[in-house]
Amino acid sequence: GSMAEGGGAGGRSNVLGHSSSWAGCASETGISPVPVSPIVSPLLTDMYQITMCYGYWKSGRHEVPAVFDMFFRTAPFGGSYCIFAGLSQVLSFVNSYKLNEEHIAYLKHQMPFADEGFFDYLRGLDCSRVKILAFQEGTVVFPREPLLRIEGPIGICQMLETTLLCCVNYASLVATNAARMRVAAGPSKKLLEMGLRRAQGTDGGLSASRYSYIGGFDGSSNVLAGYLFGITVSGTHAHSFVQSFTSFSDLARRSIALPDGGVCEDFVGLVVSHRARLGFGQTNEGELTAYVAYCQAFPHFFLALVDTYDTLQSGVPNFLACAVAMRELGWKPVGIRLDSGDLAYYSKEARRMFREVEAKYGFEGFAAGMQIVASNDLDEDVLYNLNSKGHEIDTFGIGTHLVTCQAQPALGCVYKLVEMDGKARIKLSQDLVKISIPSRKRVFRLYGGPGGGGAVTDL
Amino acid sequence: GSMAEGGGAGGRSNVLGHSSSWAGCASETGISPVPVSPIVSPLLTDMYQITMCYGYWKSGRHEVPAVFDMFFRTAPFGGSYCIFAGLSQVLSFVNSYKLNEEHIAYLKHQMPFADEGFFDYLRGLDCSRVKILAFQEGTVVFPREPLLRIEGPIGICQMLETTLLCCVNYASLVATNAARMRVAAGPSKKLLEMGLRRAQGTDGGLSASRYSYIGGFDGSSNVLAGYLFGITVSGTHAHSFVQSFTSFSDLARRSIALPDGGVCEDFVGLVVSHRARLGFGQTNEGELTAYVAYCQAFPHFFLALVDTYDTLQSGVPNFLACAVAMRELGWKPVGIRLDSGDLAYYSKEARRMFREVEAKYGFEGFAAGMQIVASNDLDEDVLYNLNSKGHEIDTFGIGTHLVTCQAQPALGCVYKLVEMDGKARIKLSQDLVKISIPSRKRVFRLYGGPGGGGAVTDL
Repeated sequence: GSMAEGGGAGGRSNVLGHSSSWAGCASETGISPVPVSPIVSPLLTDMYQITMCYGYWKSGRHEVPAVFDMFFRTAPFGGSYCIFAGLSQVLSFVNSYKLNEEHIAYLKHQMPFADEGFFDYLRGLDCSRVKILAFQEGTVVFPREPLLRIEGPIGICQMLETTLLCCVNYASLVATNAARMRVAAGPSKKLLEMGLRRAQGTDGGLSASRYSYIGGFDGSSNVLAGYLFGITVSGTHAHSFVQSFTSFSDLARRSIALPDGGVCEDFVGLVVSHRARLGFGQTNEGELTAYVAYCQAFPHFFLALVDTYDTLQSGVPNFLACAVAMRELGWKPVGIRLDSGDLAYYSKEARRMFREVEAKYGFEGFAAGMQIVASNDLDEDVLYNLNSKGHEIDTFGIGTHLVTCQAQPALGCVYKLVEMDGKARIKLSQDLVKISIPSRKRVFRLYGGPGGGGAVTDL
Repeated sequence: GSMAEGGGAGGRSNVLGHSSSWAGCASETGISPVPVSPIVSPLLTDMYQITMCYGYWKSGRHEVPAVFDMFFRTAPFGGSYCIFAGLSQVLSFVNSYKLNEEHIAYLKHQMPFADEGFFDYLRGLDCSRVKILAFQEGTVVFPREPLLRIEGPIGICQMLETTLLCCVNYASLVATNAARMRVAAGPSKKLLEMGLRRAQGTDGGLSASRYSYIGGFDGSSNVLAGYLFGITVSGTHAHSFVQSFTSFSDLARRSIALPDGGVCEDFVGLVVSHRARLGFGQTNEGELTAYVAYCQAFPHFFLALVDTYDTLQSGVPNFLACAVAMRELGWKPVGIRLDSGDLAYYSKEARRMFREVEAKYGFEGFAAGMQIVASNDLDEDVLYNLNSKGHEIDTFGIGTHLVTCQAQPALGCVYKLVEMDGKARIKLSQDLVKISIPSRKRVFRLYGGPGGGGAVTDL
């Protein structure tokens, strides 16, 4: 069987590989990892879990052993698989499950009729007798197989339902979305998550960064994701930076530092002379000023957003004037970012212009080494579409469609009672697809076959 | 002009009406309101805001006065309006903006080349010189008018961009979605948000509860939303509660409390006799047992989920057997919840059965007073569809489609530099719709006209 087992108070090391490695990354910075999502508390649940728990308690049934399965009925995005994620958050929630006195006071206020003994029961409630069997975080999983099996007294197992679903549903959805984009982009492209501003809630943004990384992304723009999880964080500049400059007089100085510690006193003059030599007369001077300012601040990492005014008439030419000057001074310019228009066309035109400059100046490896980053409403379909048109993009920055999972914004994971007191339970339904498979299940993933070694099927 | 003004350190009372009333509700419980979303920190931003800020600082431009507009280009859900929300979170973030030493250490680690003076600048950074003009929380707003205008030194204004967008984008989207569902359902129906388990991240769920309330919902299933914001919280039971019982022997007792403090010793016998008298022979005994247990726990609030086995053959009949017994004992049963199948048809059939029972027993107001709650994949279109078919539903519980905003999962609010050092700025673009309207704007909402008093237009 391929399910990993994690008890309430131990045996977790095998399922926390990913989480530990994040903590490891974060601690490389010398900063202690911060607990994630303080919102994830026992009150982050539906009220009916608490009323049901009271119903069980009132009938003396709260300690009856029960088994719940968490599973999804249909794979998301019209596909056949899902990437299971959210387990480390589930386990850290379960391990620290405890209602505090403020929580109890609030619930008393909500249920003034309830017996005092129930609140004593809630005070003592923890997950020490709850057993969780799960796939490993990041595993490929399929419809109707249990991702998590939760065993324990029905009272506490019922209380866990909503929070566990909330931890797994979106995490698995965004990891799956990211994995599908990775498949679409191919293994050699760099994928960056940039969706914070369009995410559903602040933690939605943080979850998106965390779980798209599990799904196969290389990094994120979200600084907090780097701070908390050690995910690679990157970013350069936006249109506002370009717009904020109008002429060279906006610059504090004309000089730039050299890699050997020296100074080039008139970097602006050098850039302007290369612009003339390249034959780019009509570029926007504010934009060129912004690029010069960016070179001065980030000489080792000059990447320019080129579509503020006109990509091919101003942005790429201004970038090249600076890039040639930087290269002459011994720096290695990084590349450009396209954020609007026909990304396939612009990327090919930009690469062609890089090659012309390489030929003109004899800069070996100049064109091939230049990164072309593309963003602007990318999704899985656009990636396939770009592939079929042909393009010169090296890195994709994906935001809205990745984090909101526009193509299917919710994974319908459910949490169903399948066994109670050792007896199988079934939920019938007027909707045939909603009928659950009763009883305790164990998933076996069979490996091998003629190809040798790959997974074959799940039973 | 209709914009409210909120400074960095004062003048906020006029724009925090909603927030204050939530705090008021929450404090009625005697519990001090908890700060929301501790994740909302200065690091919850895109890395490029920090690199740009360094670029401004390095060019000596970080103190230049700038004006940014936050606006959206197209109203969501194919409509014409949006409900502006998220302001109270924006203001509380802005008022407490402060990078701590751990944040600074992380940023130093990310930018090892940056001058030490920049980190001193970051240490001292706050929003005391930032002025924010905004619509009131919950206001109807339209495309391309500034929802927020942010004025201040460009360094800090740039640092705010992503976090402010993250606070406003989803909040306004879900408030708008909720408002559209309110319009579809009509003013007399009760609307409950139930989307926590399908929300995008844990705070996505909490934000959905909070902002759907602003958009016109009556309450939520999310206990934490009640605890933090004083939103009305409700919940009864799920299918698992029904499944967990198989026969009357699962009950701890056969008795039930009476409203006057007395006891009915054989409530089970009474229910069974009414089931026979009503002619319901073939109902599921486990389900009936669950309803009895629920009555025992919540005699003043008996609402039964009726679709676990068969809505019209078992669920509604079992409910009625209990409801008649409860009514006889002086309790007022509340109603039923439908969670699958043809909701219009089942609601009409259920109401018809309630009327038959009312006629048979002479229970005045029994049928009309019974609440019919419906859930299961509801959205705006389904609400209109139910209206056109005719239905008997009193309360809608809406989850997935409300919180994920399936019809349009992101509001494209943007944050654009429109003025710097007193001069207007424009961003051109190859995409015509992305060109911004330059300069500082002031929105006037004109009221009046022949109808007398309604808002006419925004200039």
